[in-house]
This record gives sequence, structure tokens and C-alpha cells, in this order.
Amino acid sequence: MREQGDAFHLAIPVVDLAEARHFYVDLLGCKLARTYADRITIDFFGDQLVCHLSDPVPAGASREPLDLYPRHFGVTFRRADDFDALYDLVGLRKVPVFRDLATRFDGTAEVHRTFVLQDPSDNLLEFKHYRDPRMMY
Amino acid sequence: MREQGDAFHLAIPVVDLAEARHFYVDLLGCKLARTYADRITIDFFGDQLVCHLSDPVPAGASREPLDLYPRHFGVTFRRADDFDALYDLVGLRKVPVFRDLATRFDGTAEVHRTFVLQDPSDNLLEFKHYRDPRMMY
Amino acid sequence: MREQGDAFHLAIPVVDLAEARHFYVDLLGCKLARTYADRITIDFFGDQLVCHLSDPVPAGASREPLDLYPRHFGVTFRRADDFDALYDLVGLRKVPVFRDLATRFDGTAEVHRTFVLQDPSDNLLEFKHYRDPRMMY
Amino acid sequence: MREQGDAFHLAIPVVDLAEARHFYVDLLGCKLARTYADRITIDFFGDQLVCHLSDPVPAGASREPLDLYPRHFGVTFRRADDFDALYDLVGLRKVPVFRDLATRFDGTAEVHRTFVLQDPSDNLLEFKHYRDPRMMY
Amino acid sequence: MREQGDAFHLAIPVVDLAEARHFYVDLLGCKLARTYADRITIDFFGDQLVCHLSDPVPAGASREPLDLYPRHFGVTFRRADDFDALYDLVGLRKVPVFRDLATRFDGTAEVHRTFVLQDPSDNLLEFKHYRDPRMMY
Amino acid sequence: MREQGDAFHLAIPVVDLAEARHFYVDLLGCKLARTYADRITIDFFGDQLVCHLSDPVPAGASREPLDLYPRHFGVTFRRADDFDALYDLVGLRKVPVFRDLATRFDGTAEVHRTFVLQDPSDNLLEFKHYRDPRMMY
Amino acid sequence: MREQGDAFHLAIPVVDLAEARHFYVDLLGCKLARTYADRITIDFFGDQLVCHLSDPVPAGASREPLDLYPRHFGVTFRRADDFDALYDLVGLRKVPVFRDLATRFDGTAEVHRTFVLQDPSDNLLEFKHYRDPRMMY
Amino acid sequence: MREQGDAFHLAIPVVDLAEARHFYVDLLGCKLARTYADRITIDFFGDQLVCHLSDPVPAGASREPLDLYPRHFGVTFRRADDFDALYDLVGLRKVPVFRDLATRFDGTAEVHRTFVLQDPSDNLLEFKHYRDPRMMY
Repeated sequence: MREQGDAFHLAIPVVDLAEARHFYVDLLGCKLARTYADRITIDFFGDQLVCHLSDPVPAGASREPLDLYPRHFGVTFRRADDFDALYDLVGLRKVPVFRDLATRFDGTAEVHRTFVLQDPSDNLLEFKHYRDPRMMY
Repeated sequence: MREQGDAFHLAIPVVDLAEARHFYVDLLGCKLARTYADRITIDFFGDQLVCHLSDPVPAGASREPLDLYPRHFGVTFRRADDFDALYDLVGLRKVPVFRDLATRFDGTAEVHRTFVLQDPSDNLLEFKHYRDPRMMY
Repeated sequence: MREQGDAFHLAIPVVDLAEARHFYVDLLGCKLARTYADRITIDFFGDQLVCHLSDPVPAGASREPLDLYPRHFGVTFRRADDFDALYDLVGLRKVPVFRDLATRFDGTAEVHRTFVLQDPSDNLLEFKHYRDPRMMY
Repeated sequence: MREQGDAFHLAIPVVDLAEARHFYVDLLGCKLARTYADRITIDFFGDQLVCHLSDPVPAGASREPLDLYPRHFGVTFRRADDFDALYDLVGLRKVPVFRDLATRFDGTAEVHRTFVLQDPSDNLLEFKHYRDPRMMY
Repeated sequence: MREQGDAFHLAIPVVDLAEARHFYVDLLGCKLARTYADRITIDFFGDQLVCHLSDPVPAGASREPLDLYPRHFGVTFRRADDFDALYDLVGLRKVPVFRDLATRFDGTAEVHRTFVLQDPSDNLLEFKHYRDPRMMY
Repeated sequence: MREQGDAFHLAIPVVDLAEARHFYVDLLGCKLARTYADRITIDFFGDQLVCHLSDPVPAGASREPLDLYPRHFGVTFRRADDFDALYDLVGLRKVPVFRDLATRFDGTAEVHRTFVLQDPSDNLLEFKHYRDPRMMY
Repeated sequence: MREQGDAFHLAIPVVDLAEARHFYVDLLGCKLARTYADRITIDFFGDQLVCHLSDPVPAGASREPLDLYPRHFGVTFRRADDFDALYDLVGLRKVPVFRDLATRFDGTAEVHRTFVLQDPSDNLLEFKHYRDPRMMY
Repeated sequence: MREQGDAFHLAIPVVDLAEARHFYVDLLGCKLARTYADRITIDFFGDQLVCHLSDPVPAGASREPLDLYPRHFGVTFRRADDFDALYDLVGLRKVPVFRDLATRFDGTAEVHRTFVLQDPSDNLLEFKHYRDPRMMY
């Protein structure tokens, strides 16, 4: 179990701060903490997310198809209710979904439900709920 | 404040699972949770870190110099003691440092101490402690 | 989430301390903390409410109709049970209701149940319960 | 002691939403939760503050001098450190002060330190720290 | 809500330490903390009960009939499950009952379930569960 | 450690409800919860104290000298600061003291500081702080 | 109730560190904390288990049949869900069972469900859930 | 961090229940939970210790010298104060010490203070305090 007073912090690139704010604050319901010219900081489910303004991939550059692996982030909820409430919000507010609700690893101890969202800068967010909370790590 | 029962989870690329395990478990003192052929999962200060085995950047590819922005992760400690204990461990175990201990934004409400570590796959980890805990977000 | 050891405190005008005490302590079930000639302090659902004795609006003065906006206060409960228990108490003790139980913003993430009480000095109190607790802010 | 999961909520009038946001988020370091055309909601030290856009007092209207009584709100901190950190922030960011730091009721059990801030719509905020935490109510 | 680290402590007279120990430890399932020649101390549902060896009422003395008022003690449980588990234990272990399970103040906000036990020295213990937890005080 | 949601409750006789209220609420700083014709209920350091109106000892009756044993109640504080704050309040508000501050059992593991107060109905209240918190039981 | 910050620690003999790691980490889902030549340390349900490499019983030595008494260890869960989740994991991962799920002491206050596992070095682990949580001690 | 509601439980052999009770309850200050003909259960620093009455090693049997490895148990304290308080108690009550206070692994991240006690049945108990709490596992 983690220390309640600490905060995980994650810095990610975004190509547009206003878009990022719209996605995380207006759609996902996170709270906006601080605003700077080159970044905004978000209270993301109680942890800190820093969105740094970054150059988009140049037009001519070869861009790989978006993939959940190896890089994504999110929250694993302890209570199914919190997972369900977020999934409801995703539907009500039409948050862009990259991979819809699915159950993975059925028939194993690691069985969990999961869905993946996509922010406007193509960062991927995975939210999960495990039947056995000890599998959260 | 975050929910104690939930876990932030972050998936990152690593080019060698054994090296990653050595860095996170043997050096940083994190706990190894699960081991698979293509990834390991770590209890990283109470949150979940998933190290996915990934291809290294090809030899001939142009590689940008390593930069803290826009992408890094870490922990912002609530108590100075926890920050200090980790910095001591870094010295004792000679964990690779990317940017040593410094005070940033002195003379502002956001003043904090920070240092940055570098894992064997060039992921950067920043650890922070703010004088005013409300600035953690 | 808020710090459990801290207390929000709110000071409001009341035109009669005995009436205020009757409303908050005898009807609403709050606890009386301190009594002075010009004010009483109340443990209001764990936060502090200070009722300051104030002049009523003069008889001849034009008085605006009582409106919930922009000024009211109350509690947003995390658990539906606590919301329901308070609503039951309101019925059992016939606490004056300004706007009865209703569901607002149905079909959105902000959906919540709410009712509004009126204290003897025409202060309005709103109590709420959100289906999605992240919408409490 | 209050329930950690609940939130006190307070609705106040403001004459300009952008000014209110600047004061509460950029200066006081509160978090912006939701933004609407006629109001913004703030995570105010863990409780909810709703700023409703309201008409300013008409130019010709007689306006009473601003007084701390009977109406103000704020936080009573359990730990002196949290009170001190906020007072430091007020100085560093030059938050408008209505009544500067003072000790009140010295020589009694109710002794406490206090300062009062003034938001751009003339709402007054009092922050306190009591030597004896039982006097917080 | 009370401070978790503190302990209420109550000292009561008992006419026989072995009987008291049997009642509180073997029957009620409390834990024996310390044993002295003239008293035993009990971890009574997390608070401290001290049983002082005292003279019984002299044989010839007029003794008033045992009454619940004005003097008794016990626990008001927050969760109905904890109340029910204790009532089950009372039945299973045949703990002496002074007044059996009853619902009091039905149709009011103070409605609660209650039963009263009698220890071998005629101290009376009342255990309660309120439908509305705010009525516990 | 005790359950934070539960409350110890203790019923005691008092010969005058107004006096009892003055002692517990105005002097000791407890909170008044409920008022009835024959009793008042007090939030006593987070637990419940019920003061039942009772007949005083008849004038002609032999009355034993007041003794701390076997019957008294109070709080054992986990933190020395809370014990000190209460002792300060006793001095500032001139709460009647039955036995002043003393250290007992020095040189043993049970060493603790203690003082005893006397309410207007001759109920005795002992407050304690142990150097070793495990001795609180 | 125990202190959340502390850890129980238990050191046990194992005849093979790799086998022990497989049993506790890969099968039981515990977390590997530290690895040394002569021992491994495990985060065992939040407490610390140290597996010390030890000599096996010599081949010719008379070996007593494996018995649950007097020596075993395990966890008593507060919530039935956690007990059930572990029992499910035992089935899914085919963890070696020494004594299967059974209800003991039915018809008494001590009634509880229990099952016993056997590690590769013949250490026995018992997991329990009591209907009445006060019987956990 | 461990679940506060759960309890680690450890069953150990003792050759005399009265001696075991004297050591764990009267000397170490643990609480006696339940007493049976063949075992006693102890609330050992918040976890459960079961002392099972067992045969002593036969007189003629070769008995190995008492060794801390591989089998012992105890508590790793989070706070230095709790470690110090227990060490003081050991001195004041002359609890049998197997290995006195020492600092181990100085100059490494694992540095900790430790002492080892010996119960009347030759079970060994180690108590520890780490400078860096993350090393507790």
C-alpha cells in the first residue's frame, strides 16, 4: 500500500496545452493545479501529472502506429465502484476510447477489467480493476 | 490527497529485464511483484511500475540527447525524511545520477529540492520534496 | 480529499442566538461547542460554524426574495447512507425545507441528489450526494 | 473530527470569474475543478468552493464598509506548519491581506494566530491556528 | 470522531478479581492487559477498563435494586455488524443479560437497538447501535 | 487501538444539569450534543458522556470522603502535547482540581503523568500520559 | 489493532532459495524485497518474511510426520473477500495444500474458516477468517 | 504497508503455559487474549501469537546450541520512539536478553538497530529499527 501523503508524479509531452486541459480537466474530471506558459500541472486521481508543451512529430517523419506497449499510464482502482464510475463518465462525456472495456486473463489470478483512453497528444491511459487486489502490483 | 487503496500504474520500455530488475529492486530498493517473459512488474514506492521488454534504438538511428523534459516520472515525498533517506540510499548504493540534488525555484512558493536518476534503459526518475506540501500538485 | 485534522470554518449572521442554537443543535443534531454573548460556535458535521448575532434587515428596507444563489453552504456526503440519514432526520424533526429532495443533472456525470434547508435567519443549507464521488469538487 | 470522505461546500458571489480564478488558483494555490459559464468550482483546501457570477453592487448604492463580521470563511489548521506555509505563500505571492497576522485571545484557552485575506469580490477569508486543537470548534 | 491513539479509561469497583477476569476476558472476549494484587486492567473494545478490588456491600446494608440509571457504560458501535457479532457472542457464551435486545425511540432520529449486560459485581454494560450515526453523541 | 468509528459511552449521575453543562462544556471545552429534561449528552473527547439528573445524597446521610478509587474516568492521551494542552486549559479556566499534576510509578515501565479533576457532582476525572504508549492498557 | 507502519517479521528455514522464491512470489503472489546469497526477504501480505538457507534434515535422520502444531504462521483476514480471493488463487495456481478449507469451532464465538498450505521446505501456512473479528486474537 | 484490519498470526511451541504468559504478558507487556488447556493466545504488538503447550526436548537428546538463525520472530518498528520504549522496558523489567542492542550493517542502506530476547522456551525474538523505513522488507 502506498503512502497517502506522497504523490506519484509523471511528466508527459503534449502538443497543445489547451487541448490537454480540456481532455484532463473538462472531460476526465481531473483538477487543474498550476498553469505556466510551457506546462500545466494536473491533480490526476490524487497523483500529479505534468503536461509539457512539446513539438509534434514533424509532418514528414515516419510515425509508428499507436500502441499500448510499452508506454502508458493510469490508475488501478481498489474498488469496483470507482472503476465503474469512471467508465460511466467516459460514456457520458464521450471521452475518446482507444480500447474499450474488456476482461483480461480470465481464469487466472490476474483476471481484471480494463479500458484504455487516448488523449489529444496520443498518450494512452489504462484504467484497471482486479478481482484480487493483491494482483494490483 | 490520493486514495490509499488505489495504485498509479506506469508502463515503460526497458531494453533488458535483468538490468531493469537490478536497478529497481537491488539498487532502488523497490519490490519485485511479478515476472513474465516480456515484462516485470515492480511495487515502486507503493505504486505499480511495469517494465516492458522493448527494442533498443537501432545503432544507426539518430538518437536525441537525453533530456528530463518532457518525459520522466518519480515520487514527490510529503516528508523531508523520506526524501533524505532515498538520497542517502542513492549515495550508498551508487545509483546512477542524471542530475544531482538541487533546490529549484528558491524564493517562490514552489521551492523544492530535487534530484534525477537514470535507469539502464535511459528512463529518467525525478524525486522531489516541496517546503509547502500544497505545491505538490 | 481534505485533511482530517483541519476544519473548514464559516461565519454567518443570525438574528437570534437561541433560535440558531435550536435549529442547528436541537433540530439538525449538530453539537454546540462554545457560547458567547454575541455568538455561538457549532461543530457542524465536523467543521466549524460560527453564528454571529447580527441586526435583522430593517422593517422598511426592501428585501430581496430568498434565493439559493449565490450564497449557501452545506455538506456533500461521500456515502449515500449519510445523505439518507440526514434526510430522514429532516422529516422526523420537521426541519424547515426550502427546496425538497430532487435529482439534478440527470444523464450527466454530475448527477446528484440534493435538498435545501432554511435556518431561522434565512441562511440556506444545501446537502448533496453525487453518484460519482469525483464530482464532489 | 470530520469525515475525510465528505466535503464542506460553500457558494459565494463573485463579480468576475477570471479574477476569482486568478485569486483562488494562481495566488492561493487551490485547484480548479470545474468551469461553467456562470460559475467555477474550486477544490479549496480539500473542501468545495463554488464561485457564482453575480451582479456587483450598483454604483450609486450605499455600500457598507467591509467588515469581517458576520460573514467570512476559511480554514483552521491542525498543524502550525500548514498555517505557516500558507502565510509564507501569501507573502511570496503578494496575496491581498485584509488584516495581517495577529495573536488573539492571548492568556486564554482560545488563544490562536489568525490572518485575513480579501478576494477580488470582497469576500473575506480567515485562516487560523489554535495552540489547543480542541478549541478549533 | 475520537482520536484513534487515545484511550478512554474507566475505573470500576469489583468484588472479586477472578470473577471480573472471567466475565470480561473469558466471556466478553476482552483482552487482559495487566494484573496486580488489587486490580486488573482490561483492553475493553480498545479502551481501558480498570477493575479495582472493592469491598462488597455489607450484608446488613440496605441495597437498592439494580438500575440502569444513572450509572452504566458500554460501546456504541458504528457498524451494525459489530453490534450483531457481540449480541451473538452473548448468546453463544451465555453472558448474563440484564435487559435483552430492544429497539428504543422508534420513529425518532434517535432510534437505536440496545441490550444491557450485568457483570458479577453488578456493574451494568449497555451496547448500542444507532441507525443515524450522528446520534451516537 | 480502538475503532475510530465507535464511541465509548459512560452514564454518570449529576445533581444539577446546568452545573454539569457549565463544567463539561464551558470549562472543559467538551461539546454539548443533546439536551433533555432529565439528562444531557456530551461529546467528551470524542466519546459519549451522558449526565443523568439524580438525587443528591440526602442531607442526613453519612457521606464517605471522596476517593479516586474505585470509581473514576478520563482519557489517556497518546501525545504529550494533548495532555499538556488540557492541563494548560485547567489552569487558565480554573477548573476544580482534585489532585494536581504528578508523576506516578517513576522508574518502572508504567511511569506516567496524571492529574485529577472534580466535577460539581463529585465525579472524578483522571487524565494521563504514559511515556510508553503500550502501557495505556 | 496493529500499527500500520510497523511490520511483523518472521525468519524461517528453507532448503532451497529458488524454490522458496517460486512458492512465495510466483505462486502466493507475495513481493520479493531483497536477495542475498544466504537468504531472501519477502513482503508477505505486508509483513516481512525472511527465508534463510538451511541444511535439510539428513537422509538417515528420523523425521517426524509433518504437523500443524505447534509451529505454523499465516494471516487472519479481517474481510471475508480477502480470504476468498486468496483461496481462489490457491486453486487457480495449484498451490500445495496441506489441509483444505474447513470451518472450525462451529457453534461457538470462535467459529472461523481456515486452510493450510505447505511450502517446499515443509513450513506450514494457515490462513483464517473469523465471523466475529474480535476473535482474531 | 500492511492492512490494518488483518493480523499476522504465529504459532510457537512453549513448554510451560504459565511461564509463557509471564514472559509475554507480565514482562513484555503484551495482552492475553484467550486461555485454553493446551494453549494461550496473545495480542503481540497487534498481531496474534499462539503459544502451544509442547513437550520439552528429552533430557538425553542432543540439543543444538541456541541460534538466531534460521528461526526467530519479532517486530520492526517504524518509529525509533517505539523501539526505544521497548528497549527501556526490557531494562526496567529485566527481560532476558539473548543479544543486546547493536547496530548492524552500518554504512549501508540496510543499517538498523536490533536486540534479541529469549523466552522461557528458548524462542528468540528480534526487534529492529531501520534508519530508512523502506528497508523494513
